[in-house]
Amino acid sequence: MAALQRRLVDFAAARDWQPYHTPKNLAAALSVEASELLEIFQWLTPEQAERVMDDPGSAHRVRDEVADVLAYLLQFCAALGVDPLTALAAKIDRNELRFPALRRDGGVAGGAETGDRHSSE
Amino acid sequence: MAALQRRLVDFAAARDWQPYHTPKNLAAALSVEASELLEIFQWLTPEQAERVMDDPGSAHRVRDEVADVLAYLLQFCAALGVDPLTALAAKIDRNELRFPALRRDGGVAGGAETGDRHSSE
Amino acid sequence: MAALQRRLVDFAAARDWQPYHTPKNLAAALSVEASELLEIFQWLTPEQAERVMDDPGSAHRVRDEVADVLAYLLQFCAALGVDPLTALAAKIDRNELRFPALRRDGGVAGGAETGDRHSSE
Amino acid sequence: MAALQRRLVDFAAARDWQPYHTPKNLAAALSVEASELLEIFQWLTPEQAERVMDDPGSAHRVRDEVADVLAYLLQFCAALGVDPLTALAAKIDRNELRFPALRRDGGVAGGAETGDRHSSE
Repeated sequence: MAALQRRLVDFAAARDWQPYHTPKNLAAALSVEASELLEIFQWLTPEQAERVMDDPGSAHRVRDEVADVLAYLLQFCAALGVDPLTALAAKIDRNELRFPALRRDGGVAGGAETGDRHSSE
Repeated sequence: MAALQRRLVDFAAARDWQPYHTPKNLAAALSVEASELLEIFQWLTPEQAERVMDDPGSAHRVRDEVADVLAYLLQFCAALGVDPLTALAAKIDRNELRFPALRRDGGVAGGAETGDRHSSE
Repeated sequence: MAALQRRLVDFAAARDWQPYHTPKNLAAALSVEASELLEIFQWLTPEQAERVMDDPGSAHRVRDEVADVLAYLLQFCAALGVDPLTALAAKIDRNELRFPALRRDGGVAGGAETGDRHSSE
Repeated sequence: MAALQRRLVDFAAARDWQPYHTPKNLAAALSVEASELLEIFQWLTPEQAERVMDDPGSAHRVRDEVADVLAYLLQFCAALGVDPLTALAAKIDRNELRFPALRRDGGVAGGAETGDRHSSE
């Protein structure tokens, strides 16, 4: 991932795109690309959405939008000096404390109260 | 990154969240999280946005939203069997053909005509 | 709607918020609020989503986010001198030509070929 | 606005699009269209963004995306029985209490403490 991030930064520099690639613009571009990924799914039923990779055209479009989201995320992180893998590892650590796992008997490991916590993820 | 993706999938499975984590829902959640990252910047001038990591509270919020975006991207990719790094490498290859780099003399390497191609990225 | 738009503009002026309310910032804020509306639905099944107004708390949240989306849309339009109702009427006129209605016998009025045009809306 | 909302609902019904126009799908489509509006501005400086209506092509694109955002907002509201103007009027009433206006002497009308409240809008 670090190698791809380097290629993206070099790619932009070789085209004099750095003036456009401010943190604010990259955050906007990231959200625009994430919406383009969602657009593929917006009219599909949940069942149709599960099978989206069966059609070569849709599969290509999904991979292309995934690439765009990751590209802008990595460029955003490069611009601000954020390490996305470290940030994610820290977030998972925090979430393991916030949302205790279920035990096999259906209760919650660690004794915390349960309920539908998914919405507050 | 593969290890973090595995932790995310196991984390969701241990909480019985897989029924929520359909491709369509994960695409929606990814776009919602990307918007939460943008929200941090929406009222900032470009100059204020460049300094967002100087404030510990804002810096934490940025890292937290970066983690959320990456988390949903990886879970989306796991659900559909997409390899995000392979998708990104292929996209950069294609873009290197579409957008020739500038030569040092200000022209375009490869002889293609130039212009402001950034908007059609 | 014009009266509400006037109230919004006066409201921002009375708080010296105009420097923040640039067209670019308002477009970002509009997209952030639209995502907050989507967030209410992101983990719901289609059936649960149909019943979202049955719960008073969810119903309030939906109305609140609808208000935010409309507020930023009207402020964006005020900043750029766009009349949203005229723009929408013109768009519906264009779409009536692009997407012929079905006849009662299942064919398409006007003789145009049919197909699933919804995705290209 | 009510007449346009009626046209939109009839337009969808005449094309058998109601099965697609669930509340969840319309919320997703609304957020996708709001991102398409933002896309016009994503690489512009604040100054360029202020002049976006000077170019006929950009001006048309802005009006077109404004129309799409309003169209999906009105269809979403029709699907759930929400009155967007009533929702917005109620929100402005609440915000007038939350964010006291500045007095001419630079203080805050009503005696509430001030500060940069914009970010918590």
